[in-house]
Amino acid sequence: MTSSTTTRVTVLGLGDMGSAIARTFLDRGFATTVWNRTASKAAPLVEAGAGSAATAAEAVAASPLVVVCLLDGTAVDEVLASVESAVTGKVLVNVTSGSPAQARANELWAKEHGAAYIDGKIMGDPPYVGTERVMFPFSGSAKAYEAHEPTLKALGGIAYHGEDAGAAAVEFMAQVAFAYELLIGFLHVLKLVRAEGLDVRAFTERAAGSLAAFPGLLDSMAEAVADGAYGPDLGSLNVQAALMNDMIAHRASVGVEAVRMREVKDLMDRRIAAGHGDQGFSSLFELLPPLE
Amino acid sequence: MTSSTTTRVTVLGLGDMGSAIARTFLDRGFATTVWNRTASKAAPLVEAGAGSAATAAEAVAASPLVVVCLLDGTAVDEVLASVESAVTGKVLVNVTSGSPAQARANELWAKEHGAAYIDGKIMGDPPYVGTERVMFPFSGSAKAYEAHEPTLKALGGIAYHGEDAGAAAVEFMAQVAFAYELLIGFLHVLKLVRAEGLDVRAFTERAAGSLAAFPGLLDSMAEAVADGAYGPDLGSLNVQAALMNDMIAHRASVGVEAVRMREVKDLMDRRIAAGHGDQGFSSLFELLPPLE
Ligand SMILES: NC(=O)c1ccc[n+]([C@@H]2O[C@H](COP(=O)([O-])OP(=O)(O)OC[C@H]3O[C@@H](n4cnc5c(N)ncnc54)[C@H](OP(=O)(O)O)[C@@H]3O)[C@@H](O)[C@H]2O)c1
Ligand SMILES: NC(=O)c1ccc[n+]([C@@H]2O[C@H](COP(=O)([O-])OP(=O)(O)OC[C@H]3O[C@@H](n4cnc5c(N)ncnc54)[C@H](OP(=O)(O)O)[C@@H]3O)[C@@H](O)[C@H]2O)c1
Repeated sequence: MTSSTTTRVTVLGLGDMGSAIARTFLDRGFATTVWNRTASKAAPLVEAGAGSAATAAEAVAASPLVVVCLLDGTAVDEVLASVESAVTGKVLVNVTSGSPAQARANELWAKEHGAAYIDGKIMGDPPYVGTERVMFPFSGSAKAYEAHEPTLKALGGIAYHGEDAGAAAVEFMAQVAFAYELLIGFLHVLKLVRAEGLDVRAFTERAAGSLAAFPGLLDSMAEAVADGAYGPDLGSLNVQAALMNDMIAHRASVGVEAVRMREVKDLMDRRIAAGHGDQGFSSLFELLPPLE
Repeated sequence: MTSSTTTRVTVLGLGDMGSAIARTFLDRGFATTVWNRTASKAAPLVEAGAGSAATAAEAVAASPLVVVCLLDGTAVDEVLASVESAVTGKVLVNVTSGSPAQARANELWAKEHGAAYIDGKIMGDPPYVGTERVMFPFSGSAKAYEAHEPTLKALGGIAYHGEDAGAAAVEFMAQVAFAYELLIGFLHVLKLVRAEGLDVRAFTERAAGSLAAFPGLLDSMAEAVADGAYGPDLGSLNVQAALMNDMIAHRASVGVEAVRMREVKDLMDRRIAAGHGDQGFSSLFELLPPLE
């Protein structure tokens, strides 16, 4: 009997993501107990060897480590309320998406009920759970994290962000925002591409190719922001502002929105008016709300 | 005497970018004539071996190929007006940033004055002109492009986008918009990162690392948009919309704007209300203006 076959873990919530997590634990030989509000979703996992539980509290009682993966904070609140008496002495790992404030409130609740709390967030898709293509930032109890790191490692690329239970959610909120900014911008660009009669897939291949230049660019922009020393990245604002007028007019001519482009132009104009037209794009950071 | 030493080229406009272009032509052994409105900017190039010209018209007369690199369309209009009588029989390559409409108007002007017209756009920074790190989409006269391709190749990564003089500008407008969407979104994310007390540079390193996943994601999103068949990319909209509420509330709590996040949430809600909550992020494309 290897040590992993003796390690017990419970998974609460068997949606797409919770099922992928439970399946991964099973595949790695952990003794896995599962529970889901709608019981039918547990069936394929129980067939594959998972232990079943009639209630969430019963599932919690089965293992020292309990992974919670539900839709949102409201669902977490409801399920935690139903397991109150079972959690004493357990380690709760909540990987449900949510805010830093929710994570900190969950930690408080766990402490009040004699449980250790680790907050986790998931960046990636269910089919890739168990591989490095899914990243799990964790934060909260260092002692509990160290004790259960070998188990959590089975889930994918893991990283510990410190004792503040909210830290994993902060990382998640920032990383996910970056992804959504990029992706909603990309969809608007595809609208422009289609309005102009270009082939959407061929253009995307070229745009995706351009991404190779961005890690270096982001790094130099972050350095400028960190130091407050702004060189003329992407050219001087004087030159970029001239281009921005043409972009906005062009978008109007093909009926594509220009929310961010107008914002960028406005920020550039204000920066130039303040005497910084020789600086570059990253200097716009200075004008973003909140004012510091 | 190699063939490149006998190839003559003129550069009008010696700002940061025009100077880099002229310098590159010189370095590759082309017989290069330069002109700039403010004459002093020509001096270092003339010292390096470039031919000087007292007027733009004189510079145009010196070479069969004339590259124009000025601030914007207004500057191009002014300079072209001053070279009217000199352009007959020449090939004009205008690499000044601008819209497809400006490019098409320039082509008309060139035809009326007996010149061939190629429009070009520049994606990259002056120090990298002459390397593959700077991309030049071109469009316009195929005959002129073929004849001068070996010369234009000296400038960096070049690509021909067809006879429509506006095509290079369309590509540029779309590629540059994608870059600005990504970068202004990134600056807002850094605001969030700083508001939460994270290290800006360490976070950026992690975010830049995440970019490796995006070429594949963009490609599959473009495929979904092209086919109008939307799988649950990034998870179902039902799941994503729950997360979006938390993101917006979190941003409000730290005073960071949420323009795009509110837009995304609104689009998700509308898509879910229309019965498509099982589809993914790329399906939001269907709701973007203009309505088709
Ligand atoms: N799917 C992805 O691509 C992805 C990626 C990264 C992160 N995530 C995160 O992972 C978490 C789970 O996502 P998912 O894709 O598994 O969602 P899902 O397939 O919609 O599953 C949602 C789960 O939450 C349960 N649930 C919802 N409300 C509940 C309540 N009031 N009480 C008890 N259980 C409740 C559901 O139970 P029933 O079966 O009874 O409805 C189900 O188990 C979310 O926080 C999501 O943001 C998902
Ligand atoms: N710099 C970059 O990183 C970059 C990147 C990609 C594309 N571009 C594009 O390249 C083009 C040139 O940019 P740049 O960086 O070289 O700009 P720049 O350094 O500001 O130079 C502007 C040039 O335009 C000339 N000019 C402006 N108004 C004029 C007028 N009315 N009549 C005659 N000449 C006029 C200036 O002449 P004076 O010297 O007499 O003022 C100067 O030669 C722009 O379209 C820009 O968008 C630049």
